[in-house]
Amino acid sequence: MRTLLIISHPSIADSHTQRFLWESLPEEGVSWHHLEKEYPSNQIDIQKEQTLLLEHDRILFQFPLYWYSSPPLLKQWQDEVLTEGFAYGKTGNLLTGKEFGLIVTTGVHERAYQAGREEKFTIPELMRPFEAVANKCGMIYLPVLLLARFDYLSESEKKALLIRYRQYLTNQNDDSLVAREQWFKQELRTYGKKDFSEEDQQLIELLIEQMEENREQLDDLLFTLQELEEL
Amino acid sequence: MRTLLIISHPSIADSHTQRFLWESLPEEGVSWHHLEKEYPSNQIDIQKEQTLLLEHDRILFQFPLYWYSSPPLLKQWQDEVLTEGFAYGKTGNLLTGKEFGLIVTTGVHERAYQAGREEKFTIPELMRPFEAVANKCGMIYLPVLLLARFDYLSESEKKALLIRYRQYLTNQNDDSLVAREQWFKQELRTYGKKDFSEEDQQLIELLIEQMEENREQLDDLLFTLQELEEL
Repeated sequence: MRTLLIISHPSIADSHTQRFLWESLPEEGVSWHHLEKEYPSNQIDIQKEQTLLLEHDRILFQFPLYWYSSPPLLKQWQDEVLTEGFAYGKTGNLLTGKEFGLIVTTGVHERAYQAGREEKFTIPELMRPFEAVANKCGMIYLPVLLLARFDYLSESEKKALLIRYRQYLTNQNDDSLVAREQWFKQELRTYGKKDFSEEDQQLIELLIEQMEENREQLDDLLFTLQELEEL
Repeated sequence: MRTLLIISHPSIADSHTQRFLWESLPEEGVSWHHLEKEYPSNQIDIQKEQTLLLEHDRILFQFPLYWYSSPPLLKQWQDEVLTEGFAYGKTGNLLTGKEFGLIVTTGVHERAYQAGREEKFTIPELMRPFEAVANKCGMIYLPVLLLARFDYLSESEKKALLIRYRQYLTNQNDDSLVAREQWFKQELRTYGKKDFSEEDQQLIELLIEQMEENREQLDDLLFTLQELEEL
């Protein structure tokens, strides 16, 4: 699976969060595509953007929440790139079946986004226009990944969130336990060996073995359950 | 009451609907402010825009619905003009108490905007980000005025919609029968005399008299009702 990560941020150099996210990208499978860097004078290359979309299976928008939506260049990108005959309409629906998700950063507490609190609406409610884009183009809409007050998190909270971020970028759209196990094993095998002492690497191998043993026991239990149901 | 009508439309010269709306503006009380004309190179004069906002009581955004939101320049306008300390925050909330509304044009049937139909979401749902702006700035959010498939309407349907448009621009935010009567009488007296034959003008005077008689009878009935309640 190939992921196109379309970032819109007018002042990305000043954003710790965006740098953190950039540094935690997996080594392959994800194309980082920063619109304001690519098009400093707002002249979007429509043909190039459409080709990029076709080359990827998962399309993600990553942006800071400005006035409950994206920065303007990402809106311009939608208006110019998602044309009739390419993204929707009778003559072409070339994005149908692709996955589409949002990674939204905000300096406001997540709990503020609900009825009765300061921001009044939830993030999924505020993102309806993007959900409607997915609907129009026949894309599979993923749950929004909200990164709230990232700068204020502790180191371990940041690490936990970065795992969710990496899963969002590359994990199959399958929240089952089996899928998450597979993803963790893959990640541990690929990245766990770097920058770790021999002792830690042994620990990682033990962890993977334990996970596989648990899985075998779970499979046995599931098998027994099925047998019982058939009686 | 003074109304600031902020229009965002990248190709307004090609839009019959926008020309129709422009031609039906009342002679006073409404400032037509077309962002793409004012700022062809996207360099928004923030000071000027903030002054304009302070000089008006009702702020309206008028735009074609592109991908379930406004064109990008109106988003840029929000991000740059509605600054902390001016539009929200502890040090300044200068828009508090002003009215804020949206006039949205679309080529899609209004009935398509609902769960179970093509566009899946209602217009008020899709406009939540703007409602959240009103909430943040302490502005009074008006019901959205949707002008759907304006070009396809009959002449009489267009006229009926233009009356609603003019009410939206200048009527007090009061949907009572009395308020609407007052507005109609005012409109008829101000505009009814132009371009009409003497016969039509007499008809208009008769109409106003009839409306006033009806009002007197209604007031009498209300008075009698109150008397009865007090018994």
